[in-house]
Amino acid sequence: MQIAYFNGKFLSKEDVKISPDDRGFLFADGVYEVVRWYEGFFFDMDSHLSRLKRSLRELRINWAEVDMFPALSHELIKQNNLENQPAMIYLQVSRGAAKRSHNFPSSEVPPTVYANAWGFVPDIQSKESGIKVMLKEDIRWNRCDIKSVALLANTLSFQEAYQVGLQECIFVRNGLITEGSHSNIFFVIDGMLCTHPESNHILSGVTRKNILRIADELGIKIREEAVQESRIRFIKEAFISNTSAEVTPVTVLGGNTIGDGVPGHVTKLIQEKFDSEVKNKHEN
Amino acid sequence: MQIAYFNGKFLSKEDVKISPDDRGFLFADGVYEVVRWYEGFFFDMDSHLSRLKRSLRELRINWAEVDMFPALSHELIKQNNLENQPAMIYLQVSRGAAKRSHNFPSSEVPPTVYANAWGFVPDIQSKESGIKVMLKEDIRWNRCDIKSVALLANTLSFQEAYQVGLQECIFVRNGLITEGSHSNIFFVIDGMLCTHPESNHILSGVTRKNILRIADELGIKIREEAVQESRIRFIKEAFISNTSAEVTPVTVLGGNTIGDGVPGHVTKLIQEKFDSEVKNKHEN
Repeated sequence: MQIAYFNGKFLSKEDVKISPDDRGFLFADGVYEVVRWYEGFFFDMDSHLSRLKRSLRELRINWAEVDMFPALSHELIKQNNLENQPAMIYLQVSRGAAKRSHNFPSSEVPPTVYANAWGFVPDIQSKESGIKVMLKEDIRWNRCDIKSVALLANTLSFQEAYQVGLQECIFVRNGLITEGSHSNIFFVIDGMLCTHPESNHILSGVTRKNILRIADELGIKIREEAVQESRIRFIKEAFISNTSAEVTPVTVLGGNTIGDGVPGHVTKLIQEKFDSEVKNKHEN
Repeated sequence: MQIAYFNGKFLSKEDVKISPDDRGFLFADGVYEVVRWYEGFFFDMDSHLSRLKRSLRELRINWAEVDMFPALSHELIKQNNLENQPAMIYLQVSRGAAKRSHNFPSSEVPPTVYANAWGFVPDIQSKESGIKVMLKEDIRWNRCDIKSVALLANTLSFQEAYQVGLQECIFVRNGLITEGSHSNIFFVIDGMLCTHPESNHILSGVTRKNILRIADELGIKIREEAVQESRIRFIKEAFISNTSAEVTPVTVLGGNTIGDGVPGHVTKLIQEKFDSEVKNKHEN
Protein backbone atom coordinates (compact mmCIF):
# COMPACT_ATOMS: atom_id res chain seq x y z
CA MET A 1 0.00 0.00 0.00
CA GLN A 2 1.38 3.39 -1.01
CA ILE A 3 1.19 6.00 1.74
CA ALA A 4 0.57 9.59 0.69
CA TYR A 5 0.25 12.88 2.54
CA PHE A 6 -2.97 14.80 2.08
CA ASN A 7 -4.05 17.93 3.93
CA GLY A 8 -2.41 17.11 7.22
CA LYS A 9 -2.74 13.33 7.21
CA PHE A 10 -0.74 10.33 6.11
CA LEU A 11 -3.10 7.88 4.44
CA SER A 12 -3.34 5.26 1.75
CA LYS A 13 -2.89 6.94 -1.62
CA GLU A 14 -6.12 5.22 -2.70
CA ASP A 15 -7.97 7.27 -0.09
CA VAL A 16 -6.78 10.65 -1.35
CA LYS A 17 -9.80 12.41 -2.75
CA ILE A 18 -9.16 15.56 -4.74
CA SER A 19 -12.31 17.64 -4.96
CA PRO A 20 -13.60 18.48 -8.45
CA ASP A 21 -13.68 22.06 -7.14
CA ASP A 22 -9.95 22.00 -6.48
CA ARG A 23 -8.28 24.91 -8.24
CA GLY A 24 -5.40 22.62 -9.14
CA PHE A 25 -7.85 20.59 -11.22
CA LEU A 26 -9.90 23.50 -12.62
CA PHE A 27 -7.31 26.24 -13.18
CA ALA A 28 -3.81 24.70 -12.86
CA ASP A 29 -3.66 27.02 -9.88
CA GLY A 30 -0.92 25.32 -7.91
CA VAL A 31 2.79 24.65 -7.57
CA TYR A 32 4.90 21.54 -7.11
CA GLU A 33 8.34 20.21 -6.27
CA VAL A 34 10.09 16.92 -7.01
CA VAL A 35 12.88 15.99 -4.62
CA ARG A 36 15.29 13.09 -4.87
CA TRP A 37 16.14 10.74 -2.04
CA TYR A 38 19.65 9.28 -2.22
CA GLU A 39 19.33 6.36 0.19
CA GLY A 40 19.95 8.49 3.24
CA PHE A 41 19.46 12.13 2.32
CA PHE A 42 17.51 14.44 0.04
CA PHE A 43 19.49 16.25 -2.63
CA ASP A 44 19.73 19.94 -1.71
CA MET A 45 16.41 20.04 0.13
CA ASP A 46 17.21 23.62 1.20
CA SER A 47 17.05 24.82 -2.40
CA HIS A 48 13.87 22.89 -3.11
CA LEU A 49 12.26 24.43 -0.02
CA SER A 50 13.39 27.93 -1.01
CA ARG A 51 12.05 27.50 -4.51
CA LEU A 52 8.75 26.14 -3.21
CA LYS A 53 8.40 29.19 -0.99
CA ARG A 54 9.13 31.46 -3.92
CA SER A 55 6.57 29.70 -6.15
CA LEU A 56 3.92 29.98 -3.43
CA ARG A 57 4.76 33.64 -2.90
CA GLU A 58 4.55 34.43 -6.62
CA LEU A 59 1.08 32.86 -6.77
CA ARG A 60 0.12 34.23 -3.36
CA ILE A 61 -0.84 30.81 -2.05
CA ASN A 62 -0.52 30.69 1.69
CA TRP A 63 0.61 27.32 3.03
CA ALA A 64 1.46 28.23 6.61
CA GLU A 65 3.18 24.88 7.27
CA VAL A 66 5.53 25.06 4.29
CA ASP A 67 8.54 24.55 6.58
CA MET A 68 7.35 21.04 7.31
CA PHE A 69 8.15 19.99 3.73
CA PRO A 70 11.49 18.31 4.63
CA ALA A 71 10.04 16.43 7.62
CA LEU A 72 6.94 15.49 5.65
CA SER A 73 9.15 14.14 2.86
CA HIS A 74 11.23 12.14 5.29
CA GLU A 75 8.13 10.67 6.87
CA LEU A 76 6.85 9.58 3.44
CA ILE A 77 10.16 7.84 2.75
CA LYS A 78 9.88 6.00 6.07
CA GLN A 79 6.23 5.08 5.78
CA ASN A 80 6.79 3.69 2.29
CA ASN A 81 9.93 1.75 3.31
CA LEU A 82 12.07 3.58 0.79
CA GLU A 83 15.00 4.46 3.10
CA ASN A 84 17.42 2.13 1.36
CA GLN A 85 16.72 2.80 -2.28
CA PRO A 86 16.69 5.75 -4.67
CA ALA A 87 13.32 7.44 -4.37
CA MET A 88 11.39 10.54 -5.30
CA ILE A 89 9.03 12.82 -3.44
CA TYR A 90 6.35 14.74 -5.31
CA LEU A 91 4.63 17.61 -3.49
CA GLN A 92 1.82 19.72 -4.90
CA VAL A 93 0.16 22.70 -3.25
CA SER A 94 -2.90 24.17 -4.93
CA ARG A 95 -5.04 27.16 -3.96
CA GLY A 96 -7.68 24.82 -2.52
CA ALA A 97 -11.26 23.90 -3.37
CA ALA A 98 -13.85 26.62 -3.93
CA LYS A 99 -16.80 27.45 -6.19
CA ARG A 100 -15.35 27.94 -9.66
CA SER A 101 -14.46 31.58 -10.32
CA HIS A 102 -11.42 33.16 -11.95
CA ASN A 103 -10.72 35.34 -8.93
CA PHE A 104 -9.03 33.81 -5.89
CA PRO A 105 -11.33 32.39 -3.21
CA SER A 106 -11.51 33.88 0.28
CA SER A 107 -8.24 33.64 2.20
CA GLU A 108 -10.03 31.28 4.59
CA VAL A 109 -10.03 28.52 1.96
CA PRO A 110 -7.08 26.31 2.91
CA PRO A 111 -4.64 25.19 0.20
CA THR A 112 -4.72 21.56 -0.93
CA VAL A 113 -1.46 19.86 0.00
CA TYR A 114 -0.67 16.49 -1.53
CA ALA A 115 2.57 14.52 -1.54
CA ASN A 116 3.64 11.02 -2.43
CA ALA A 117 6.81 8.96 -2.72
CA TRP A 118 7.99 6.20 -5.02
CA GLY A 119 11.04 4.05 -5.61
CA PHE A 120 13.07 5.28 -8.52
CA VAL A 121 15.41 3.53 -10.98
CA PRO A 122 18.09 5.96 -12.24
CA ASP A 123 18.65 5.90 -16.01
CA ILE A 124 22.34 4.97 -15.98
CA GLN A 125 22.39 4.18 -19.69
CA SER A 126 21.40 7.74 -20.63
CA LYS A 127 23.92 9.24 -18.21
CA GLU A 128 26.69 7.16 -19.79
CA SER A 129 25.83 7.29 -23.48
CA GLY A 130 23.87 10.49 -23.74
CA ILE A 131 20.46 11.23 -25.20
CA LYS A 132 19.01 12.65 -28.38
CA VAL A 133 16.70 15.61 -28.03
CA MET A 134 14.26 17.60 -30.15
CA LEU A 135 14.35 21.36 -30.70
CA LYS A 136 10.97 23.08 -30.86
CA GLU A 137 9.40 26.48 -30.51
CA ASP A 138 8.71 27.45 -26.91
CA ILE A 139 4.92 27.82 -26.76
CA ARG A 140 4.78 28.18 -22.98
CA TRP A 141 3.63 31.19 -21.01
CA ASN A 142 5.86 34.00 -19.75
CA ARG A 143 6.31 32.84 -16.17
CA CYS A 144 8.31 29.65 -16.61
CA ASP A 145 10.24 30.69 -13.49
CA ILE A 146 7.26 29.60 -11.38
CA LYS A 147 7.18 25.84 -10.82
CA SER A 148 3.45 25.63 -11.44
CA VAL A 149 1.29 22.71 -12.52
CA ALA A 150 0.26 24.61 -15.66
CA LEU A 151 2.29 22.06 -17.61
CA LEU A 152 0.11 21.41 -20.63
CA ALA A 153 2.57 23.00 -23.06
CA ASN A 154 5.36 20.94 -21.49
CA THR A 155 3.54 17.64 -21.85
CA LEU A 156 2.36 18.34 -25.40
CA SER A 157 5.88 19.29 -26.44
CA PHE A 158 7.56 16.40 -24.67
CA GLN A 159 5.09 13.95 -26.22
CA GLU A 160 6.18 15.09 -29.69
CA ALA A 161 9.75 14.20 -28.85
CA TYR A 162 8.79 10.98 -27.10
CA GLN A 163 6.77 9.73 -30.06
CA VAL A 164 9.75 9.88 -32.39
CA GLY A 165 12.07 8.22 -29.90
CA LEU A 166 13.76 11.38 -28.59
CA GLN A 167 14.31 11.83 -24.88
CA GLU A 168 13.62 15.50 -24.30
CA CYS A 169 12.15 18.50 -26.07
CA ILE A 170 14.31 21.62 -25.86
CA PHE A 171 12.61 24.95 -26.40
CA VAL A 172 13.60 27.90 -28.58
CA ARG A 173 12.05 31.30 -27.92
CA ASN A 174 12.73 34.18 -30.28
CA GLY A 175 15.70 32.28 -31.69
CA LEU A 176 17.22 31.60 -28.26
CA ILE A 177 17.51 28.17 -26.64
CA THR A 178 15.78 28.38 -23.25
CA GLU A 179 15.46 24.98 -21.53
CA GLY A 180 13.78 21.60 -21.86
CA SER A 181 10.21 20.52 -21.13
CA HIS A 182 11.40 19.27 -17.74
CA SER A 183 15.13 20.02 -17.65
CA ASN A 184 17.65 22.82 -18.00
CA ILE A 185 20.25 22.64 -20.75
CA PHE A 186 23.96 23.51 -20.81
CA PHE A 187 26.39 23.88 -23.70
CA VAL A 188 30.14 23.99 -24.05
CA ILE A 189 31.17 26.61 -26.64
CA ASP A 190 34.71 27.96 -26.99
CA GLY A 191 35.64 26.09 -23.82
CA MET A 192 33.00 27.93 -21.83
CA LEU A 193 29.96 26.46 -20.09
CA CYS A 194 26.90 28.32 -21.42
CA THR A 195 23.33 28.22 -20.16
CA HIS A 196 20.30 30.49 -20.29
CA PRO A 197 20.40 32.99 -17.40
CA GLU A 198 17.70 32.97 -14.74
CA SER A 199 14.70 34.81 -16.13
CA ASN A 200 10.96 34.45 -16.57
CA HIS A 201 11.67 32.09 -19.50
CA ILE A 202 13.32 29.28 -17.53
CA LEU A 203 12.90 27.43 -14.28
CA SER A 204 15.73 27.99 -11.85
CA GLY A 205 16.68 24.33 -11.52
CA VAL A 206 18.15 23.06 -8.27
CA THR A 207 20.48 20.77 -10.21
CA ARG A 208 21.30 23.67 -12.57
CA LYS A 209 22.40 25.78 -9.61
CA ASN A 210 24.59 22.99 -8.24
CA ILE A 211 26.14 22.42 -11.66
CA LEU A 212 27.09 26.09 -11.91
CA ARG A 213 28.72 25.85 -8.47
CA ILE A 214 30.56 22.65 -9.42
CA ALA A 215 31.75 24.09 -12.74
CA ASP A 216 33.05 27.13 -10.92
CA GLU A 217 34.88 24.95 -8.39
CA LEU A 218 36.42 23.01 -11.29
CA GLY A 219 37.71 26.27 -12.78
CA ILE A 220 35.45 26.03 -15.83
CA LYS A 221 34.53 29.39 -17.30
CA ILE A 222 30.79 30.07 -17.13
CA ARG A 223 28.65 32.22 -19.36
CA GLU A 224 25.03 32.59 -18.24
CA GLU A 225 23.81 33.77 -21.58
CA ALA A 226 21.20 32.32 -23.94
CA VAL A 227 22.61 30.44 -26.93
CA GLN A 228 21.13 31.25 -30.32
CA GLU A 229 19.69 28.35 -32.25
CA SER A 230 21.66 29.59 -35.26
CA ARG A 231 24.90 28.89 -33.37
CA ILE A 232 24.31 25.17 -32.90
CA ARG A 233 27.30 24.35 -35.11
CA PHE A 234 29.60 25.98 -32.54
CA ILE A 235 28.36 23.77 -29.71
CA LYS A 236 31.05 21.27 -28.74
CA GLU A 237 29.20 19.59 -25.86
CA ALA A 238 25.70 19.65 -24.43
CA PHE A 239 23.92 18.19 -21.43
CA ILE A 240 20.62 18.50 -19.65
CA SER A 241 20.04 18.58 -15.93
CA ASN A 242 17.18 17.90 -13.58
CA THR A 243 16.46 16.09 -10.34
CA SER A 244 16.18 12.65 -11.93
CA ALA A 245 18.58 12.98 -14.88
CA GLU A 246 21.26 14.76 -12.79
CA VAL A 247 23.86 15.52 -15.52
CA THR A 248 22.85 13.69 -18.71
CA PRO A 249 24.85 14.29 -21.91
CA VAL A 250 23.10 15.29 -25.13
CA THR A 251 24.64 13.83 -28.27
CA VAL A 252 22.07 14.93 -30.83
CA LEU A 253 20.23 18.26 -30.65
CA GLY A 254 17.48 18.97 -33.15
CA GLY A 255 19.02 16.51 -35.61
CA ASN A 256 22.54 17.95 -35.21
CA THR A 257 25.25 15.68 -33.86
CA ILE A 258 27.04 17.49 -31.04
CA GLY A 259 30.83 17.26 -31.04
CA ASP A 260 31.87 13.67 -31.77
CA GLY A 261 28.43 12.32 -30.94
CA VAL A 262 29.61 11.04 -27.57
CA PRO A 263 29.56 12.67 -24.11
CA GLY A 264 32.17 15.43 -24.00
CA HIS A 265 35.12 16.02 -21.71
CA VAL A 266 33.72 18.97 -19.75
CA THR A 267 30.38 17.20 -19.38
CA LYS A 268 32.11 14.16 -17.91
CA LEU A 269 34.18 16.27 -15.50
CA ILE A 270 31.02 17.89 -14.15
CA GLN A 271 29.18 14.59 -14.07
CA GLU A 272 32.00 12.96 -12.11
CA LYS A 273 32.16 15.73 -9.53
CA PHE A 274 28.38 15.70 -9.18
CA ASP A 275 28.38 11.93 -8.65
CA SER A 276 31.30 12.00 -6.24
CA GLU A 277 29.66 14.73 -4.14
CA VAL A 278 26.56 12.56 -3.82
CA LYS A 279 28.68 9.50 -3.05
CA ASN A 280 30.74 11.34 -0.42
CA LYS A 281 27.68 12.76 1.23
CA HIS A 282 26.32 9.26 1.30
CA GLU A 283 29.37 7.89 3.09
CA ASN A 284 29.41 10.63 5.71
CA MET B 1 -27.78 17.60 -2.84
CA GLN B 2 -25.93 18.61 -6.01
CA ILE B 3 -25.82 15.88 -8.66
CA ALA B 4 -22.71 15.68 -10.83
CA TYR B 5 -21.62 13.45 -13.68
CA PHE B 6 -18.40 11.54 -13.21
CA ASN B 7 -16.98 8.87 -15.52
CA GLY B 8 -20.27 7.43 -16.67
CA LYS B 9 -22.33 7.91 -13.53
CA PHE B 10 -24.63 10.52 -12.05
CA LEU B 11 -23.85 10.86 -8.38
CA SER B 12 -23.73 13.30 -5.49
CA LYS B 13 -21.04 15.90 -6.19
CA GLU B 14 -19.66 15.11 -2.74
CA ASP B 15 -18.88 11.60 -3.93
CA VAL B 16 -16.80 12.69 -6.92
CA LYS B 17 -13.24 11.64 -6.20
CA ILE B 18 -10.59 13.01 -8.53
CA SER B 19 -7.44 10.91 -8.30
CA PRO B 20 -4.22 12.70 -7.31
CA ASP B 21 -2.78 10.97 -10.40
CA ASP B 22 -5.29 12.72 -12.64
CA ARG B 23 -3.47 14.57 -15.41
CA GLY B 24 -5.94 17.40 -15.05
CA PHE B 25 -4.61 17.93 -11.53
CA LEU B 26 -0.91 17.25 -12.26
CA PHE B 27 -0.41 18.75 -15.74
CA ALA B 28 -3.46 20.88 -16.60
CA ASP B 29 -3.86 18.23 -19.26
CA GLY B 30 -7.55 18.64 -20.01
CA VAL B 31 -10.22 20.72 -21.69
CA TYR B 32 -13.53 22.19 -20.60
CA GLU B 33 -16.73 23.85 -21.75
CA VAL B 34 -19.27 26.05 -19.99
CA VAL B 35 -22.76 26.03 -21.49
CA ARG B 36 -25.70 28.19 -20.54
CA TRP B 37 -29.21 26.92 -19.92
CA TYR B 38 -31.96 29.43 -20.74
CA GLU B 39 -34.91 27.87 -18.91
CA GLY B 40 -35.71 25.48 -21.69
CA PHE B 41 -32.71 25.26 -24.03
CA PHE B 42 -28.94 25.46 -24.12
CA PHE B 43 -27.43 28.40 -25.96
CA ASP B 44 -25.89 27.16 -29.23
CA MET B 45 -25.02 23.72 -27.88
CA ASP B 46 -23.92 22.71 -31.39
CA SER B 47 -21.08 25.23 -31.31
CA HIS B 48 -20.03 24.20 -27.80
CA LEU B 49 -19.97 20.56 -28.86
CA SER B 50 -17.94 21.36 -32.00
CA ARG B 51 -15.45 23.37 -30.00
CA LEU B 52 -15.16 20.63 -27.39
CA LYS B 53 -14.39 18.14 -30.15
CA ARG B 54 -11.77 20.46 -31.57
CA SER B 55 -10.12 20.97 -28.16
CA LEU B 56 -10.02 17.21 -27.57
CA ARG B 57 -8.60 16.64 -31.04
CA GLU B 58 -5.89 19.27 -30.57
CA LEU B 59 -4.80 17.59 -27.31
CA ARG B 60 -5.37 14.10 -28.73
CA ILE B 61 -7.63 13.14 -25.84
CA ASN B 62 -10.02 10.43 -26.92
CA TRP B 63 -13.43 10.67 -25.28
CA ALA B 64 -15.40 8.24 -27.40
CA GLU B 65 -18.76 9.34 -25.92
CA VAL B 66 -18.27 13.05 -26.66
CA ASP B 67 -21.58 13.16 -28.55
CA MET B 68 -23.43 12.51 -25.34
CA PHE B 69 -22.46 15.97 -24.05
CA PRO B 70 -25.86 17.56 -24.88
CA ALA B 71 -27.88 14.70 -23.37
CA LEU B 72 -25.59 14.55 -20.34
CA SER B 73 -26.05 18.30 -19.83
CA HIS B 74 -29.79 18.01 -20.09
CA GLU B 75 -29.84 15.18 -17.58
CA LEU B 76 -27.82 17.30 -15.13
CA ILE B 77 -30.34 20.13 -15.48
CA LYS B 78 -33.16 17.72 -14.76
CA GLN B 79 -31.51 15.91 -11.87
CA ASN B 80 -30.67 19.23 -10.21
CA ASN B 81 -34.18 20.64 -10.76
CA LEU B 82 -32.85 23.57 -12.75
CA GLU B 83 -35.28 23.35 -15.69
CA ASN B 84 -37.05 26.57 -14.82
CA GLN B 85 -34.18 28.89 -14.00
CA PRO B 86 -31.04 30.21 -15.67
CA ALA B 87 -28.28 27.66 -15.13
CA MET B 88 -24.81 26.67 -16.20
CA ILE B 89 -23.18 23.38 -17.11
CA TYR B 90 -19.45 22.89 -16.60
CA LEU B 91 -17.81 19.93 -18.32
CA GLN B 92 -14.16 18.95 -18.00
CA VAL B 93 -12.38 16.13 -19.78
CA SER B 94 -8.83 15.35 -18.76
CA ARG B 95 -6.38 12.76 -20.10
CA GLY B 96 -7.12 10.48 -17.15
CA ALA B 97 -5.18 9.16 -14.18
CA ALA B 98 -1.78 7.55 -14.68
CA LYS B 99 1.64 7.39 -13.05
CA ARG B 100 3.12 10.89 -13.37
CA SER B 101 5.18 11.27 -16.54
CA HIS B 102 5.36 14.08 -19.09
CA ASN B 103 4.55 11.74 -21.97
CA PHE B 104 0.95 10.67 -22.52
CA PRO B 105 -0.13 7.47 -20.80
CA SER B 106 -1.14 4.36 -22.76
CA SER B 107 -4.20 4.86 -24.95
CA GLU B 108 -6.00 2.37 -22.71
CA VAL B 109 -6.14 4.91 -19.87
CA PRO B 110 -9.67 6.33 -20.06
CA PRO B 111 -10.16 10.11 -19.88
CA THR B 112 -11.66 11.60 -16.72
CA VAL B 113 -15.04 13.14 -17.50
CA TYR B 114 -16.62 15.40 -14.93
CA ALA B 115 -19.61 17.73 -15.25
CA ASN B 116 -21.81 19.69 -12.88
CA ALA B 117 -24.65 22.19 -13.03
CA TRP B 118 -25.67 25.18 -10.97
CA GLY B 119 -28.34 27.85 -10.87
CA PHE B 120 -27.08 31.12 -12.24
CA VAL B 121 -28.03 34.75 -11.58
CA PRO B 122 -27.35 36.92 -14.65
CA ASP B 123 -25.54 40.19 -13.97
CA ILE B 124 -28.20 42.55 -15.36
CA GLN B 125 -26.59 45.62 -13.82
CA SER B 126 -23.34 45.12 -15.79
CA LYS B 127 -25.24 44.47 -19.01
CA GLU B 128 -27.13 47.73 -18.56
CA SER B 129 -24.49 50.08 -17.21
CA GLY B 130 -21.31 48.52 -18.53
CA ILE B 131 -18.11 47.49 -16.78
CA LYS B 132 -14.64 48.85 -16.23
CA VAL B 133 -11.75 46.65 -17.32
CA MET B 134 -7.99 46.50 -16.93
CA LEU B 135 -5.46 46.27 -19.77
CA LYS B 136 -2.45 44.07 -19.13
CA GLU B 137 0.28 42.24 -20.98
CA ASP B 138 -0.81 38.84 -22.26
CA ILE B 139 1.46 36.38 -20.42
CA ARG B 140 -0.41 33.29 -21.59
CA TRP B 141 0.91 30.52 -23.81
CA ASN B 142 0.64 30.37 -27.60
CA ARG B 143 -2.36 28.06 -27.86
CA CYS B 144 -5.15 30.17 -26.41
CA ASP B 145 -7.38 28.71 -29.13
CA ILE B 146 -7.58 25.47 -27.12
CA LYS B 147 -10.12 25.68 -24.28
CA SER B 148 -7.79 23.95 -21.84
CA VAL B 149 -7.72 24.03 -18.05
CA ALA B 150 -4.20 25.52 -18.13
CA LEU B 151 -5.76 28.73 -16.81
CA LEU B 152 -3.20 29.88 -14.27
CA ALA B 153 -2.23 32.97 -16.29
CA ASN B 154 -5.94 33.80 -16.69
CA THR B 155 -6.69 33.57 -12.96
CA LEU B 156 -3.57 35.52 -11.94
CA SER B 157 -4.38 38.27 -14.42
CA PHE B 158 -8.08 38.41 -13.57
CA GLN B 159 -7.27 38.58 -9.86
CA GLU B 160 -5.21 41.73 -10.47
CA ALA B 161 -8.25 43.40 -12.03
CA TYR B 162 -10.63 42.03 -9.42
CA GLN B 163 -8.55 43.35 -6.55
CA VAL B 164 -8.81 46.92 -7.75
CA GLY B 165 -12.53 46.67 -8.43
CA LEU B 166 -12.32 46.09 -12.19
CA GLN B 167 -14.48 43.45 -13.82
CA GLU B 168 -12.22 41.92 -16.44
CA CYS B 169 -8.60 41.88 -17.49
CA ILE B 170 -8.06 42.45 -21.21
CA PHE B 171 -4.78 41.26 -22.69
CA VAL B 172 -2.32 43.01 -24.99
CA ARG B 173 0.21 40.93 -26.92
CA ASN B 174 2.90 42.67 -28.94
CA GLY B 175 0.91 45.88 -28.79
CA LEU B 176 -2.31 44.25 -30.02
CA ILE B 177 -5.46 43.78 -27.94
CA THR B 178 -6.30 40.06 -27.98
CA GLU B 179 -9.15 39.15 -25.60
CA GLY B 180 -10.04 39.01 -21.91
CA SER B 181 -9.09 36.48 -19.22
CA HIS B 182 -12.45 34.79 -19.81
CA SER B 183 -14.15 36.81 -22.54
CA ASN B 184 -13.68 38.10 -26.07
CA ILE B 185 -13.69 41.84 -26.70
CA PHE B 186 -15.22 43.95 -29.49
CA PHE B 187 -14.70 47.58 -30.43
CA VAL B 188 -16.55 50.09 -32.57
CA ILE B 189 -14.07 52.24 -34.51
CA ASP B 190 -15.04 54.41 -37.50
CA GLY B 191 -18.49 52.83 -37.40
CA MET B 192 -17.04 49.35 -37.83
CA LEU B 193 -17.21 46.46 -35.40
CA CYS B 194 -13.63 45.32 -34.77
CA THR B 195 -12.40 42.21 -32.97
CA HIS B 196 -9.27 40.07 -32.97
CA PRO B 197 -9.47 37.44 -35.72
CA GLU B 198 -9.48 33.74 -34.86
CA SER B 199 -5.90 32.70 -34.21
CA ASN B 200 -3.77 30.87 -31.67
CA HIS B 201 -3.92 34.01 -29.49
CA ILE B 202 -7.65 33.97 -28.75
CA LEU B 203 -10.38 31.51 -27.92
CA SER B 204 -13.02 31.22 -30.59
CA GLY B 205 -15.93 32.19 -28.38
CA VAL B 206 -19.38 30.76 -29.05
CA THR B 207 -20.95 34.09 -28.10
CA ARG B 208 -18.34 35.90 -30.23
CA LYS B 209 -19.37 33.87 -33.27
CA ASN B 210 -23.04 34.62 -32.68
CA ILE B 211 -22.32 38.31 -32.25
CA LEU B 212 -20.52 38.42 -35.59
CA ARG B 213 -23.52 36.75 -37.23
CA ILE B 214 -25.92 39.17 -35.53
CA ALA B 215 -23.83 42.21 -36.49
CA ASP B 216 -23.78 41.03 -40.07
CA GLU B 217 -27.55 40.55 -40.07
CA LEU B 218 -27.91 44.07 -38.69
CA GLY B 219 -25.84 45.41 -41.56
CA ILE B 220 -22.98 46.50 -39.30
CA LYS B 221 -19.60 46.48 -41.02
CA ILE B 222 -17.21 43.98 -39.46
CA ARG B 223 -13.44 44.04 -39.34
CA GLU B 224 -11.83 40.93 -37.85
CA GLU B 225 -8.51 42.59 -37.20
CA ALA B 226 -6.60 43.14 -33.98
CA VAL B 227 -6.80 46.65 -32.54
CA GLN B 228 -3.54 48.26 -31.45
CA GLU B 229 -3.37 49.43 -27.87
CA SER B 230 -2.02 52.72 -29.18
CA ARG B 231 -5.33 53.32 -30.99
CA ILE B 232 -7.50 53.27 -27.87
CA ARG B 233 -8.43 56.94 -28.36
CA PHE B 234 -10.18 56.01 -31.61
CA ILE B 235 -12.44 53.46 -29.91
CA LYS B 236 -16.01 54.78 -29.76
CA GLU B 237 -17.61 51.74 -28.13
CA ALA B 238 -16.43 48.50 -26.55
CA PHE B 239 -18.03 45.38 -25.16
CA ILE B 240 -17.01 41.94 -23.97
CA SER B 241 -18.75 38.67 -24.66
CA ASN B 242 -18.90 35.25 -23.12
CA THR B 243 -21.43 32.63 -22.12
CA SER B 244 -22.43 34.30 -18.87
CA ALA B 245 -21.88 38.00 -19.73
CA GLU B 246 -23.51 37.65 -23.20
CA VAL B 247 -22.97 41.20 -24.58
CA THR B 248 -21.68 43.40 -21.74
CA PRO B 249 -20.61 47.00 -22.54
CA VAL B 250 -17.20 48.29 -21.49
CA THR B 251 -17.15 51.92 -20.39
CA VAL B 252 -13.58 52.18 -19.14
CA LEU B 253 -10.65 50.33 -20.73
CA GLY B 254 -7.24 50.52 -19.07
CA GLY B 255 -8.18 53.79 -17.40
CA ASN B 256 -9.52 55.33 -20.62
CA THR B 257 -13.19 56.30 -20.75
CA ILE B 258 -14.70 54.85 -23.92
CA GLY B 259 -16.97 57.18 -25.89
CA ASP B 260 -19.28 59.00 -23.50
CA GLY B 261 -18.63 56.54 -20.70
CA VAL B 262 -21.99 54.85 -21.26
CA PRO B 263 -22.97 51.82 -23.40
CA GLY B 264 -22.83 52.82 -27.04
CA HIS B 265 -25.43 52.69 -29.79
CA VAL B 266 -24.01 49.78 -31.80
CA THR B 267 -23.41 47.81 -28.61
CA LYS B 268 -27.05 48.25 -27.62
CA LEU B 269 -28.31 47.23 -31.07
CA ILE B 270 -26.34 44.00 -30.87
CA GLN B 271 -27.34 43.42 -27.27
CA GLU B 272 -31.02 43.88 -28.12
CA LYS B 273 -30.92 41.47 -31.04
CA PHE B 274 -29.01 38.93 -28.93
CA ASP B 275 -31.58 39.19 -26.15
CA SER B 276 -34.55 39.05 -28.50
CA GLU B 277 -33.19 35.94 -30.22
CA VAL B 278 -32.95 34.22 -26.86
CA LYS B 279 -36.39 35.44 -25.87
CA ASN B 280 -37.94 34.28 -29.17
CA LYS B 281 -36.32 30.90 -28.94
CA HIS B 282 -37.71 30.65 -25.47
CA GLU B 283 -41.26 31.34 -26.60
CA ASN B 284 -41.11 28.82 -29.43
